Amino acid sequence: MTRDVPIPVTVVGLGSMGRALAGAFADAGHPTTVWNRTPAKAAPLVAKGAVHARVVEAAVEASPLVITCLTTFEDTRSALEPAAAALSGRALVTLNSGSPAGARAMAAWATGRGARFLAGAVKNVPEAVGAPDTLLYYSGDKTVFDEYETTLKVLGGDTVHLGDETDLAALYEMAVGAMLLPALVGFFQGAAAVQARGLEASSMVRFAGKWLDMIKSLLPVYATEIDRGDYTDAASSVNLFLAGAAHDMELTKETNVDVAWLAPLHDLVGRAAAAGHGDHSISALTEVLRKPAQKA
Amino acid sequence: MTRDVPIPVTVVGLGSMGRALAGAFADAGHPTTVWNRTPAKAAPLVAKGAVHARVVEAAVEASPLVITCLTTFEDTRSALEPAAAALSGRALVTLNSGSPAGARAMAAWATGRGARFLAGAVKNVPEAVGAPDTLLYYSGDKTVFDEYETTLKVLGGDTVHLGDETDLAALYEMAVGAMLLPALVGFFQGAAAVQARGLEASSMVRFAGKWLDMIKSLLPVYATEIDRGDYTDAASSVNLFLAGAAHDMELTKETNVDVAWLAPLHDLVGRAAAAGHGDHSISALTEVLRKPAQKA
Repeated sequence: MTRDVPIPVTVVGLGSMGRALAGAFADAGHPTTVWNRTPAKAAPLVAKGAVHARVVEAAVEASPLVITCLTTFEDTRSALEPAAAALSGRALVTLNSGSPAGARAMAAWATGRGARFLAGAVKNVPEAVGAPDTLLYYSGDKTVFDEYETTLKVLGGDTVHLGDETDLAALYEMAVGAMLLPALVGFFQGAAAVQARGLEASSMVRFAGKWLDMIKSLLPVYATEIDRGDYTDAASSVNLFLAGAAHDMELTKETNVDVAWLAPLHDLVGRAAAAGHGDHSISALTEVLRKPAQKA
Repeated sequence: MTRDVPIPVTVVGLGSMGRALAGAFADAGHPTTVWNRTPAKAAPLVAKGAVHARVVEAAVEASPLVITCLTTFEDTRSALEPAAAALSGRALVTLNSGSPAGARAMAAWATGRGARFLAGAVKNVPEAVGAPDTLLYYSGDKTVFDEYETTLKVLGGDTVHLGDETDLAALYEMAVGAMLLPALVGFFQGAAAVQARGLEASSMVRFAGKWLDMIKSLLPVYATEIDRGDYTDAASSVNLFLAGAAHDMELTKETNVDVAWLAPLHDLVGRAAAAGHGDHSISALTEVLRKPAQKA
């Protein structure tokens, strides 16, 4: 085992997340090579000891482990195309958002060029890269994960392999990520409401944080209900949320905040009640969100 | 000071939350009187030593501190009406959801009958009542809060008085609560997506929980941006979320889950970009949510 000698790593793509990844490797003593279409982004990493490759081929050739952090899979292929011949035999790990279909296309492209491929996602902000609790998950070639697990953990201590199917990380990325924009818009709406009263948005941060803790505590219960398809033991019923919808509408009158975006959510709750789920757990909305299978 | 002698408390309304409140007082050694329209709900509390009043007048007359936990302010007034004469000189504390206007009407009713009035909210599930970290907030008559703070803390260690204006608790209840349904529907959508792949919803719980922790870590940053009205230092830009909207639409194709409810959210993001916020922080959506002041 040569795990005591830090493995050379290449990072392609130096946006705020890519810079955080490369910085973590450099700080951990890995020989780190970086490349970015706009070279100026490399300067703070060079100051940390990273090598700035002038062309992407040289970046790929510098390390057995190549990590990309570009915006999309298309951007990734476009950036790597000039280095395609150099990918053969190397481990390629993508860390970007994208659809499961995008991950499958990326895997086909990478393995077609002889690379061993792992698709991953950083489930946190750039500032959290390198922390013991930071979550990154990967799917695809397990031999890549096993060989480089120690190195990948430099990016975050909570590093997980979801399975051999390359698109699983993208699927979970979408599934888990689905809470972000709706939760944030809820917070922004609340912020606008307290501001309309002349109060600071910051005054609700502590309460909103505890509210998220409460929501977190509910997730295992709801997941179990959904997995069992049994919604009858309702701590918070569909009808309770239906009553709450009327309060949401009051918010517009009281604070002049636009709550029109909530209408389809209330419609989902109403459809669940109409389908007989009124006294069932709010997690029964999952049934309403499933589209009927398309006819062949 | 007679704080060493537990103050007699009355709890009116014995749904799951009301039972948790009354149970906490009984367990803490407070002489506890309970009343509910459906008397059978009182049985488990009587087993703990609570006194079950046959009529609401007797319940109100039993204690200097009367706490109600009914579904709405209207329900509360309707239940208390026969005991209106007995309210004079007592402290009345409501713990229910409702609009700020509803809280103001409730306060007028209560003070009109000579009661000292505090409107509050339990920001957690019934199982959390009594825990040191459980949040309850109140607004209204500060003398009631000061006199009974020790007693109110039996319900949760994180007990806060928001201000003298009676409707502040309802305002924060709405503002903070605005994240709940949208976040849950995001989770249910993700659950349906992983299930469509033959995986258990429970497999995403740990990841979703950490995702909520990440969202929580962003709230102070966003609140500061919103309070300053300065969105230029963007960690996550409106344009980044605009790109993410395309991924959301992919989810329908991949997993046959209905994401139509997200359309107004994507519309908000698009309107923020069109208003010149593309490179600004996603918290700039707050500006789009504010309705233009109505013309006089």
